[in-house]
Amino acid sequence: MRQAGRYMAEYRAMRERWGFLELCKNPQAAAEVTLQPVERLGVDAAILFADILLVLEPLGVGLEFTKGGGPHIRRPVRSAADVARLPAVAVDDAVGFVFETVGGVRKALADRVPLIGFAGAPFTLASYLIEGGASREFLLTKRFMRAERPAWHALLGRLAEISAAYLNGQIAAGAQAVQLFDSWVGTLSPADYREFVLPHSRSVITRLTPEVPVIHFGVGTSTLLPSMKEAGGDVIGLDWRVELGSTWERLGHDVAVQGNLDPAVLLSGPRDIRRAAQAILDGAAGRPGHIFNLGHGVHQETPVENVKALVDIVHELSSR
Amino acid sequence: MRQAGRYMAEYRAMRERWGFLELCKNPQAAAEVTLQPVERLGVDAAILFADILLVLEPLGVGLEFTKGGGPHIRRPVRSAADVARLPAVAVDDAVGFVFETVGGVRKALADRVPLIGFAGAPFTLASYLIEGGASREFLLTKRFMRAERPAWHALLGRLAEISAAYLNGQIAAGAQAVQLFDSWVGTLSPADYREFVLPHSRSVITRLTPEVPVIHFGVGTSTLLPSMKEAGGDVIGLDWRVELGSTWERLGHDVAVQGNLDPAVLLSGPRDIRRAAQAILDGAAGRPGHIFNLGHGVHQETPVENVKALVDIVHELSSR
Repeated sequence: MRQAGRYMAEYRAMRERWGFLELCKNPQAAAEVTLQPVERLGVDAAILFADILLVLEPLGVGLEFTKGGGPHIRRPVRSAADVARLPAVAVDDAVGFVFETVGGVRKALADRVPLIGFAGAPFTLASYLIEGGASREFLLTKRFMRAERPAWHALLGRLAEISAAYLNGQIAAGAQAVQLFDSWVGTLSPADYREFVLPHSRSVITRLTPEVPVIHFGVGTSTLLPSMKEAGGDVIGLDWRVELGSTWERLGHDVAVQGNLDPAVLLSGPRDIRRAAQAILDGAAGRPGHIFNLGHGVHQETPVENVKALVDIVHELSSR
Repeated sequence: MRQAGRYMAEYRAMRERWGFLELCKNPQAAAEVTLQPVERLGVDAAILFADILLVLEPLGVGLEFTKGGGPHIRRPVRSAADVARLPAVAVDDAVGFVFETVGGVRKALADRVPLIGFAGAPFTLASYLIEGGASREFLLTKRFMRAERPAWHALLGRLAEISAAYLNGQIAAGAQAVQLFDSWVGTLSPADYREFVLPHSRSVITRLTPEVPVIHFGVGTSTLLPSMKEAGGDVIGLDWRVELGSTWERLGHDVAVQGNLDPAVLLSGPRDIRRAAQAILDGAAGRPGHIFNLGHGVHQETPVENVKALVDIVHELSSR
């Protein structure tokens, strides 16, 4: 997940001076924000400060980030004609600033910890384009995918190309691992995932520069995990709704897993955090191939000292 | 799920004259609304028109339904002291109008189809009391349950008594089956469900008048289903995120299942509806103990003729 955020005073101070898009687009400032959690929390990897939607800006759909921070798309994609009208995108020109951020972060890190880049998966990108922003029920997306099957597959095919180019650009600039975020795909049934999503997520992953580990993640995906593994990824990201040990067993130990603390636990005290972290490490049973992580992003109400406590607790417990 | 709703012109016409709470509280009007889907759609059971929160009104927390239809609680429960201050509730006095509705519906139905009543489960009721309304992340609820363990268990114990009394009142008045809605419990990890919820949901179900079937349902509960079965229920309700056949197998055929069409499919045409209904019936494989249903409520944007088409299609396909 993105590490820097409103729960950190350093980040809030940056956001007083910079709008969200403005911050993403300034490589020096974005690199500074990327490094904040590394300095403050002592995490084992840096996560690029960027956004999955940046790469959609050149599609001319009118991407904005509202004051509250949520994305808004002024001209959403609602028909086959809208899909056909989307212009070609030269990703390198469009998000060169992200690749520059990656280079700056790598230089500043000087190999202290690795840098993880990320992009949105085709379904999640399409859901923003169709809904026009965040959604709870994804009704327009679900209606579009059934009512406009050829246009749906054309759109996701385009987004798979864009997503892969975005990730390959990050890798070329120095990202040492990448995460494919299919954040909202958990709204689908397993059958719908296989028909409408799997081929396109697979298409992203097969286009990526080999030998860079790929993490594949979504929220509420318990029943989709075997299909997500089939779509690809060296690491499958798990949210807190699954039990780590039995889920890893079900997926097979030939794939690594990442997760899976409920970020809401960080609103409690160190005793609860320790207990919950221990349960996850017990589930992993010391097996290589488990990346400890939250099951989703840090809530902005979280006391930063609790996040720091988690990092310390995980380091302590996993060194035993 | 509640069958009557804004997708029906008959219901919208009623709501022009009545506020939501007003409608629930008038037994004659509420009975009329309960019967609308039976007449219009030809469903195999009537679902009581009521709300899970009605029974909380005597707690004095300031329950309102806003214009948009969402519940709002003006004085939410935020501390152990707030829990201790909640007054005793005489359920029979508080929601006598619901029981009267049940009686009126039974009389009007004259045994054409059975009537299903319902209540909220302790976790879902507590989440409304603590958050003050609907929520996406349930952060206050999750913080409360860890930070105030004794008060949490006291609160859920109280809510279990209230919920059971609400259901037993409906049964005494003539409800032929009841559904316990733990709508939002899918936000919890399996371990948290077992520690913070299971004993209280079990407590509701064990208090119910025997020999009336109990349906136990929540959304996004894939990994919680075995624990929900353990808490109780003759029928486990499934949302569309699970595959019905393999999930029933996993739960064991000693329990019945209800579900599980994604209500978003009803925004498509009859061809897609037929295909999706067939897949669910194939999953059930003609085994007795499957109640065909949606995986959650009907979206208000749904064309009513598509809901009618679904009922007809299920009747046709399952009579083969």
